[in-house]
Amino acid sequence: MTHLPEKLLAGYRNFMSGRFQTETTRYRDLARDGQTPETLVIACCDSRSAPEIIFDAGPGELFVLRNVANLVPPYAPDGEYHSTSAALEFAVQALKVKNIVVMGHGRCGGIKAALDSDALPLSPGDFIGRWMSLLAPAAESVSSNTMMTAAERQTSLERISIRYSIANLRTFPCVKILEGKGRLTLHGAWFDISTGELWVMNSETGDFERPEAE
Amino acid sequence: MTHLPEKLLAGYRNFMSGRFQTETTRYRDLARDGQTPETLVIACCDSRSAPEIIFDAGPGELFVLRNVANLVPPYAPDGEYHSTSAALEFAVQALKVKNIVVMGHGRCGGIKAALDSDALPLSPGDFIGRWMSLLAPAAESVSSNTMMTAAERQTSLERISIRYSIANLRTFPCVKILEGKGRLTLHGAWFDISTGELWVMNSETGDFERPEAE
Amino acid sequence: MTHLPEKLLAGYRNFMSGRFQTETTRYRDLARDGQTPETLVIACCDSRSAPEIIFDAGPGELFVLRNVANLVPPYAPDGEYHSTSAALEFAVQALKVKNIVVMGHGRCGGIKAALDSDALPLSPGDFIGRWMSLLAPAAESVSSNTMMTAAERQTSLERISIRYSIANLRTFPCVKILEGKGRLTLHGAWFDISTGELWVMNSETGDFERPEAE
Amino acid sequence: MTHLPEKLLAGYRNFMSGRFQTETTRYRDLARDGQTPETLVIACCDSRSAPEIIFDAGPGELFVLRNVANLVPPYAPDGEYHSTSAALEFAVQALKVKNIVVMGHGRCGGIKAALDSDALPLSPGDFIGRWMSLLAPAAESVSSNTMMTAAERQTSLERISIRYSIANLRTFPCVKILEGKGRLTLHGAWFDISTGELWVMNSETGDFERPEAE
Repeated sequence: MTHLPEKLLAGYRNFMSGRFQTETTRYRDLARDGQTPETLVIACCDSRSAPEIIFDAGPGELFVLRNVANLVPPYAPDGEYHSTSAALEFAVQALKVKNIVVMGHGRCGGIKAALDSDALPLSPGDFIGRWMSLLAPAAESVSSNTMMTAAERQTSLERISIRYSIANLRTFPCVKILEGKGRLTLHGAWFDISTGELWVMNSETGDFERPEAE
Repeated sequence: MTHLPEKLLAGYRNFMSGRFQTETTRYRDLARDGQTPETLVIACCDSRSAPEIIFDAGPGELFVLRNVANLVPPYAPDGEYHSTSAALEFAVQALKVKNIVVMGHGRCGGIKAALDSDALPLSPGDFIGRWMSLLAPAAESVSSNTMMTAAERQTSLERISIRYSIANLRTFPCVKILEGKGRLTLHGAWFDISTGELWVMNSETGDFERPEAE
Repeated sequence: MTHLPEKLLAGYRNFMSGRFQTETTRYRDLARDGQTPETLVIACCDSRSAPEIIFDAGPGELFVLRNVANLVPPYAPDGEYHSTSAALEFAVQALKVKNIVVMGHGRCGGIKAALDSDALPLSPGDFIGRWMSLLAPAAESVSSNTMMTAAERQTSLERISIRYSIANLRTFPCVKILEGKGRLTLHGAWFDISTGELWVMNSETGDFERPEAE
Repeated sequence: MTHLPEKLLAGYRNFMSGRFQTETTRYRDLARDGQTPETLVIACCDSRSAPEIIFDAGPGELFVLRNVANLVPPYAPDGEYHSTSAALEFAVQALKVKNIVVMGHGRCGGIKAALDSDALPLSPGDFIGRWMSLLAPAAESVSSNTMMTAAERQTSLERISIRYSIANLRTFPCVKILEGKGRLTLHGAWFDISTGELWVMNSETGDFERPEAE
């Protein structure tokens, strides 16, 4: 039989002898009483941008959906199963979170794939191609701009995609209604892996600014 | 304009003054060289079971997909966009991860919804209902056993769903092939929020055992 | 003539030179005054789960009934002789025990036989088959779930059978009445031979939990 | 919810920190490989005569059936469920034990009830009365002997009952056959709670003698 990679087991032991020891009660209470996170974070699968690390969050604080390029498809009650919509519905309707943060990041492989479609498909199913096609119009508008450098186009689409996901969030009736009632707030954020900087989206202008600069 | 919740900003400042300081170089290198995680973890969105925390993982170590109930739908190259399949394709084909860990956990709200369909739908779209319908046959087989307690049925379905997702992973040609060549290994794990125990799936029997008890 | 197996005689000598020496007075008093155990333990005949060992009990402490799979048949004043009912009546009516503990265990051969009726009958009398038929409905409900592993089905039935025996205990008027008066308490426990863990039944939910985890 | 009596939990903790520590491997092996006890002990439920204590037996050594007065009813393939016959069948047919020891003891409450029927019934079901009625003829023959003291009658019936159970064991075809082939040996023993003496039955004469006196 196979075993978990030793690195993971070693990490788990660190967790048990370290963090779990200091938060034993918290975990037990969360198990008994259930979770009541106030925030849903929609982030990328990228191994360099874990929300709990970047926000130094403890157990029970963040309900986290992670997919490639932190995308939110538009509302589509077509009877198909939609992973992202299901998580959104659960967070908003069942857990009644007060905030939704769409957090993108620099050097996103998914965004890169959207800009460099030559690299696709990775497999006959072309699942990445299909998934990133949600950003096709935006990707095209950016790709066509040869005045921007490759890095600028990448960062540009990363931020456009965050605004796009936030716009799609508002196509979900429950989100639209609750936001209108002031019971739900939508946020955008972009994490710079290289510098550790977190850029926060200005909800009025859509621009990304650094909190410490506010 | 709105701002990120103060709690998140405070957490971010802790990250910057703490962990990021000690791993500045690591982040910079990961930004310059790109990520090369060896493991894809497919976990639940639950706020109490963050993979990076449970495995005490640092930046660049885990590529993490998170959806409700850590489900992997079967291979379906139907031209639709599939969030989970896209992340799987990216991890296996582009990042060439060596391990895939499907990590479930106790008290899973998604699993609970699958066993208690009376609570659904949460919204007209019934996204959770559609998503969990992937487990319908399994849920039925468990629900019908009234001699088990509600908690026993819940735990049972949580573990069945992990084996189900692992079986579905093998319906993806790339996974099947690479596993056959010994270049990719599939793992199952179940985290007990209340006790912090991590139960690892025995790949031969499908049973969940505690590493320390092996 | 035959003699007791040497191993048993050697063990007896150890008892006489060891434990008996330190508890000589206790044995003498128990002989003179009679036994007044406060607990009846209904356990399995299994050679790996002796109540006196697991509970480190001394002489006079536990009144112990042991049959295959620690089963308690339902109350049946039909004039037949019932080994289990007789022991129960003696413990409750004559000894007035305050607690009854139904203790099951992992890897129970009787439970295995109930789940794998192909292995039966062992003899023309099919005594095991008849005895385990008390669990037939429960066994069927578990066997039918092919999504659970063999080990999961086994553990599930082991725990269901404990709840079943406790329910049957309450069909005995004397038990029902004394429990109602708060003079008798029923308990369930499950011993994991492999790890030595004792899981105790939560009397409200019927779930089995580890004391140290409470 | 109720908890196990503290005395039992304390005893269990002693077991875990003591005996289990020194026999961890043995328990694990017994769990993995299954039990292969060489001896079936049929003993009384009495709290003062635990076979594992008297024979200082470790895990996996003794398959133990315990009922009131260590009785073995005669072979009766009548389709009813017989606790004792089931355990006997399992020990002989499935576990293939080499020895069966019927162990009685002094001051047996069941035997006392058989001699003092005035004390019965204890309950409307009169389960003890029915159970001990297996010894009715023997009890009568002893009771009628007014030349013996009450204590002598008690000891006398205790020993007669052991020979009676051994005789009944031979009414089971499997026992009869295996004993004839020399693959199964039947033994009788009587434990004196007061002195700790173990009297062993002489298989030829049926007399009880003390090993150390042989």
